[in-house]
Amino acid sequence: MNIKEIISKKKRGQPLTADEIKYFVDGFTNGSVPDYQAAALLMAIYFKGMDSAEVSALTDAMVHSGEVLDLSAIPGVKVDKHSTGGVGDKISLVVMPVMAALGIPSAKMSGRGLGHTGGTIDKLESIPGFRTEMPSGEFFDNVRKYGIALVGQTGSLAPADKKIYALRDATECVDSVPLIASSIMSKKIASGADVIVLDVKVGSGSFMKTEAEARELAQTMAAIGGALGKKTVAVLTAMEQPLGREVGNACEVFEAIQILRGMGENDELEVAVKISACMAYYAGKYENLAEAEKAAADVIVNGKALAKFEEFVKIQGGDLEKFYYNYSLLGADEKMCRLSDKVSYVVAEKSGYVSELDAEKIGRAAMLLGAGRLKKDDKIDHFAGIRCLKKIGEYVNEGEAVFLMRSNVEYESAAELLRNSYRLSDLRVIPGAVILGVVEQQ
Amino acid sequence: MNIKEIISKKKRGQPLTADEIKYFVDGFTNGSVPDYQAAALLMAIYFKGMDSAEVSALTDAMVHSGEVLDLSAIPGVKVDKHSTGGVGDKISLVVMPVMAALGIPSAKMSGRGLGHTGGTIDKLESIPGFRTEMPSGEFFDNVRKYGIALVGQTGSLAPADKKIYALRDATECVDSVPLIASSIMSKKIASGADVIVLDVKVGSGSFMKTEAEARELAQTMAAIGGALGKKTVAVLTAMEQPLGREVGNACEVFEAIQILRGMGENDELEVAVKISACMAYYAGKYENLAEAEKAAADVIVNGKALAKFEEFVKIQGGDLEKFYYNYSLLGADEKMCRLSDKVSYVVAEKSGYVSELDAEKIGRAAMLLGAGRLKKDDKIDHFAGIRCLKKIGEYVNEGEAVFLMRSNVEYESAAELLRNSYRLSDLRVIPGAVILGVVEQQ
Repeated sequence: MNIKEIISKKKRGQPLTADEIKYFVDGFTNGSVPDYQAAALLMAIYFKGMDSAEVSALTDAMVHSGEVLDLSAIPGVKVDKHSTGGVGDKISLVVMPVMAALGIPSAKMSGRGLGHTGGTIDKLESIPGFRTEMPSGEFFDNVRKYGIALVGQTGSLAPADKKIYALRDATECVDSVPLIASSIMSKKIASGADVIVLDVKVGSGSFMKTEAEARELAQTMAAIGGALGKKTVAVLTAMEQPLGREVGNACEVFEAIQILRGMGENDELEVAVKISACMAYYAGKYENLAEAEKAAADVIVNGKALAKFEEFVKIQGGDLEKFYYNYSLLGADEKMCRLSDKVSYVVAEKSGYVSELDAEKIGRAAMLLGAGRLKKDDKIDHFAGIRCLKKIGEYVNEGEAVFLMRSNVEYESAAELLRNSYRLSDLRVIPGAVILGVVEQQ
Repeated sequence: MNIKEIISKKKRGQPLTADEIKYFVDGFTNGSVPDYQAAALLMAIYFKGMDSAEVSALTDAMVHSGEVLDLSAIPGVKVDKHSTGGVGDKISLVVMPVMAALGIPSAKMSGRGLGHTGGTIDKLESIPGFRTEMPSGEFFDNVRKYGIALVGQTGSLAPADKKIYALRDATECVDSVPLIASSIMSKKIASGADVIVLDVKVGSGSFMKTEAEARELAQTMAAIGGALGKKTVAVLTAMEQPLGREVGNACEVFEAIQILRGMGENDELEVAVKISACMAYYAGKYENLAEAEKAAADVIVNGKALAKFEEFVKIQGGDLEKFYYNYSLLGADEKMCRLSDKVSYVVAEKSGYVSELDAEKIGRAAMLLGAGRLKKDDKIDHFAGIRCLKKIGEYVNEGEAVFLMRSNVEYESAAELLRNSYRLSDLRVIPGAVILGVVEQQ
């Protein structure tokens, strides 16, 4: 076997065998396959695709390129949740305590944000004292004792995926369904869960711009899960406009707490309940999805999920009171702002109903304000962010603010993006559905 | 401008601007564009192609990545000839002295062989004492004084092409018409000729397997020549079976001398006369191609071209007498062989007319015998080679030899290739035409 033959086969559109795929993944990970040959193969995969046996073999090879976690020490069915990445997506922060409140172990590994989408670890680190690194013994203990724990992803899980992803990013091979699907699934499978629930975002603010593409990705991931023995379900959710109103880190944590207080926006509440219900149902806890939805909504309404969240933050060293105090200084009112040097509004130049709100532009604006990273090693400003004061279907008067920006850096380029991120219409626009479908394993 | 945007554009099938192409070529040559990004771009070019403006810009950027020779010190129109690479292709050895005998300056830079195709430099070096390296002053002097000189290609010509070619080879991006065309034309244009005559080989022994592909390559190269101000003509010639009977180095030089003695095989004589005539006609020496063909045939028949060849070898330090003596020890008869330890025949297992003779397999067998290189730094054995005792249309009796192999190394793998390289038929097969067409610049 040699890598040139493998590139040549894929280039001619022939399916690769599991052995050939493993040869590539192992060789690239240990350095015997140089990056230029890997880049050529990835570009050929971009053009020629992979069938479902190939994409499963690719995932499996990436899973076994590193450590595979064994969660059997935690009793019960372990369910993991993953979002393909959106703007204002704070759903994990809600789903985790909801699961714990339902008595389903919530043991999560999470990543940092990159580009215009955020990461759960970054968000939680805006709580003073919150630790996302801990020995695995402590992690397991916390899950067993409190039903909830979260750690940062270690480099030892699917290292091949990490290396391949970096190369895809440098060579414009990110937007390939088999490569996206295998990347996501390799990390989830290596994390040791029994059931995987995927939140596949659709729309301008996500990788998948159309529902057809998102459905293809969802089906590919469900098929991988099936082939590799993991129950996998995908929920397609809209990402045309940001989820909720806040885009950033501290502000998203605050908004997640509002959801747990029963004061969330409709769209984010709906997604949080649907994802939670899927996780609970496929964990085998309920007879049907409707029952699971009711149970998830109940623990939000009765405050049990909020109590779990507060317990969770405390266990991991976070100081919520200090967080609330800091955050209260960052209200919608300029006069109350102390922590951020620069707070500003983007105001409407005419009156009308908001008809479009481009999630990607808003995500990029938040990144420019310091809330996200352009490159992997960039530092982020946890208190930078954007509040969408108006969402699709809401009326704005000429001169009224559409966005509030918080930042310690110069904000003109972000403001420029925001000014181009929305459109107004004389007629009222009804926002589309948030839940677009559920794709189950065949 | 950045390389990721350029990759992304090509990946989406959009034409690149001349500036973008120059940015890539210069960046890859000076190291600012890493090889993995270059590999991704080359694979995207393989899939999406290049239009004629792009391929001319690519060629131009490669030409200007290094030295561009100025041949203006040599009086007259300078004509260069290039073959896309075949098996048993000793035509340059004939064409050069024919040109010189016609009074057209023959200043050639030539390369070494790689894979199953040979190189003119390797062939000439089988003449004891022959020098292919000389100061440029001596090169120019020889052309002015004797009308003929040949040097090895220096690394300073089109260094970008050299680097890009090595990457294409490692990443299975060799078989792309725009990349082949720009590679060939960049070296030829940097070599400073006014007129370029291309021998584009068609068939199993060459890169272009079908006439349609070869015609596309020929048209692409002619268009590049036109865009960059060089008169360019391509002759399509058959490469289903080896040209002539000898495949190797010393043996091909000997066969070239036989052609100049008027004793060549029909196919190679026909190609040599056609290429010579194209060069002479487009150099402006004759009224039409027919006149040029007659003149080229004349200098072969009257011995003037042979005399030029002998003069040429002597000027460059070669000792033809010693060559003839060595070579005479390598006749078709086993008993006469002294220089090669191992001489062997491949004999027919049944009787019949040769109906196929796979040039690529024969070229690869010659390489295994030591006549060619698998890798760039391999040493070659100048006296190793193959004589095709039977060619398409010739009758062979059961037990009669089809091939003679000369080698200092173990020859069983080569013999195995040769046994599979020919087919026999009960009906006589007439070999196809050798000259398949001439493609002129539009």
